Amino acid sequence: MTVIDFTAFIGRLATTSGETILPFFRTSLSVDDKSNAHDFDPVTEADRAAEAVMRRLIKANFPQHGIVGEEFGNEREDADYVWVLDPIDGTKSFIAGFPIWGTLIALLHKGTPVFGMMHQPFIGERFSGDSGSAQYQGPSGTRKLAVRRCASLAEATSFTTSPLLMNAADRATFGRVEQAVRLSRYGGDCYSYCMLAAGHLDLVIETELKPYDIAALIPIITGAGGVVTTWDGKPAQNGGRIIAAGDPRVHEAAMRLLNS
Amino acid sequence: MTVIDFTAFIGRLATTSGETILPFFRTSLSVDDKSNAHDFDPVTEADRAAEAVMRRLIKANFPQHGIVGEEFGNEREDADYVWVLDPIDGTKSFIAGFPIWGTLIALLHKGTPVFGMMHQPFIGERFSGDSGSAQYQGPSGTRKLAVRRCASLAEATSFTTSPLLMNAADRATFGRVEQAVRLSRYGGDCYSYCMLAAGHLDLVIETELKPYDIAALIPIITGAGGVVTTWDGKPAQNGGRIIAAGDPRVHEAAMRLLNS
Repeated sequence: MTVIDFTAFIGRLATTSGETILPFFRTSLSVDDKSNAHDFDPVTEADRAAEAVMRRLIKANFPQHGIVGEEFGNEREDADYVWVLDPIDGTKSFIAGFPIWGTLIALLHKGTPVFGMMHQPFIGERFSGDSGSAQYQGPSGTRKLAVRRCASLAEATSFTTSPLLMNAADRATFGRVEQAVRLSRYGGDCYSYCMLAAGHLDLVIETELKPYDIAALIPIITGAGGVVTTWDGKPAQNGGRIIAAGDPRVHEAAMRLLNS
Repeated sequence: MTVIDFTAFIGRLATTSGETILPFFRTSLSVDDKSNAHDFDPVTEADRAAEAVMRRLIKANFPQHGIVGEEFGNEREDADYVWVLDPIDGTKSFIAGFPIWGTLIALLHKGTPVFGMMHQPFIGERFSGDSGSAQYQGPSGTRKLAVRRCASLAEATSFTTSPLLMNAADRATFGRVEQAVRLSRYGGDCYSYCMLAAGHLDLVIETELKPYDIAALIPIITGAGGVVTTWDGKPAQNGGRIIAAGDPRVHEAAMRLLNS
């Protein structure tokens, strides 16, 4: 089994999960009678259907592999190869019709993410990486992903999905970084990390992440030349308090403030 | 001159402005040497180029019409027909690579918006309306836009781009509505109003809007069955403090809190 095989297979997982999810996105556009809208939760339906279809594909092709997913729990999580799945990262955007959610697919080898993809099927764009390099494929073609340089926090644009997702102590700590950066913005979920890998922003800081929220993004960020760790400098794949930076100088400066 | 002619012409404005803007979006993806990145402001360049190309088309086809735009000021603004242009609404999203900005094009007749379009050229979707009806055209086809029903604030999902854009008094007033709704979210710019017209959210409340931030969205919102006014119940096309609701019951309940 070569890495090339996994790359093609992840592409199949993305295509199949995207086809499963899209009929549930912006469903009210096609629903004439909305009187039952509150009885139907399209994002949960889409999440479960997409995870089921990905699990089925993985089991059929790699029955010895483990699977960790948001909807259906863990299977064989001590296998050498483990897939980590989040069919819809950014459920609040999904529900409100905003096209900035994504499907996250990671492949771990002995606990380390070796391949990751973020797929946005409505726009038709994919961000992928294997820690050595990272690629973008979208409406305007295919490109290499590369972080941008940024010498200091004073020049950095920072993102977090929402400071309200942090506990009070973490929010106060994060506030120190927020005061030091040029621009602090909210929102984004998985898109923030991909835009960091693409060189459009410099820093993402979040807390309370689950492994499936971050595992797929690690090989993309590091493949594009960025740095991603926990707030205490450990590997990021178990989630928790996460910091990602395009430039190692920004990572180092933010880490000093997070740990002072 | 019939309304049909204007509809086709607005489509041409959208197509041409989109082709002008797209080469500036996510430019760093294709720039290998980013050392000069801070000397170049792609959003300003794109904004100016797109407004210039739309003004040229309007003058060539309707020389007697007025034009109001963000970048190049007002011309013949007392004409019967006046075009109101905002090439990139959501510049902060544009700069960070997020595809949730839009080109806003409005046609006013004797001061009243009679046609409006929001165009997102990267995704390839258009929201348009003439106050009587509203349409969506995108990757998955063409559909009629219709707001959803929502009986009360307690069931409503509300959006504002950022409470930090409000002055202290307005922020306190807005806070009363925020406490009454089911879910309050930030971000969105023009997308929030279009998602309201499409039936995915119930309420948008903002302040400090310019006429070109809202004029194009009014015929879309009202065409989809929604209500949009200033906080004191006046027509919205001059901007300022704006409230849009899908269901008139939500508009009325929010207005009571904004004016109590």
